[in-house]
Amino acid sequence: MALYFEDLLVGYTDSFGSITVDRDEVIAFATAYDPQAFHLSDEGGAANPIFGRLAASGWHTAAMTMRMAIDHWSTIGVQSRGAAGLEELSWPKPTYPGDTLRAEAEVLEARPLTSLPDLGVLKVRTIVFNQHDQPVMRQIANLLIQRRPA
Amino acid sequence: MALYFEDLLVGYTDSFGSITVDRDEVIAFATAYDPQAFHLSDEGGAANPIFGRLAASGWHTAAMTMRMAIDHWSTIGVQSRGAAGLEELSWPKPTYPGDTLRAEAEVLEARPLTSLPDLGVLKVRTIVFNQHDQPVMRQIANLLIQRRPA
Repeated sequence: MALYFEDLLVGYTDSFGSITVDRDEVIAFATAYDPQAFHLSDEGGAANPIFGRLAASGWHTAAMTMRMAIDHWSTIGVQSRGAAGLEELSWPKPTYPGDTLRAEAEVLEARPLTSLPDLGVLKVRTIVFNQHDQPVMRQIANLLIQRRPA
Repeated sequence: MALYFEDLLVGYTDSFGSITVDRDEVIAFATAYDPQAFHLSDEGGAANPIFGRLAASGWHTAAMTMRMAIDHWSTIGVQSRGAAGLEELSWPKPTYPGDTLRAEAEVLEARPLTSLPDLGVLKVRTIVFNQHDQPVMRQIANLLIQRRPA
């Protein structure tokens, strides 16, 4: 099965996930890419007025969200070719080790890509929730999707 | 040395990095978080009309940029407490294995955080360049910075 640009209409909604946030992976990701005290240890997290305890790097939450999306897209056949970028990326609540994340997505806009006529651009809003149904990440991304072959 | 919110005025500019993009790490990051063919192998990259060859996940570029920022901030003493989010995150050019990245940042706005008076919010634009001085990532982030103790 393959889902092309033409199949993913404005208003298309989808839910995907879940993934449970692993404490060792939180520390390993932060050690590699975001080594701030509040992403590395319980003590560092407790000293942070926003987090209060060990919290995942926002980039790690974004990366886990991408993984949930790719696993889902490969199941349903979305013909992704990459992304141009995001218009919004925010973390309304922290992500903590042990949280279970899931995502809800909606296609907001769709337009052909004039510079590469085999591709279209979908503007997609994705909201990531924890197990308490609190939003922990919001993003609006411009995704590059293969157009249906003629 | 410590740099607080009050030390990082609008118009403050900074340059940091570099980091050289490791091919094995590109594949390892993508395997964990963004397993799309063009981030996993030469063949997958060659088949992608944007990338043309194996390219890093944009999230990996973002993560490497964060690492460059943290290494720099820890040297100059920036009292970061996290980030609320980004208003823009884009990848104007691909990042390829072997590229050497560096970043330039500028403070665009500064405001106290009313909900947590010990913190201030800096809006910072960061542009990441490759060794050809081509921009490979742009971001505008709202960073949470400790205010100077009274």
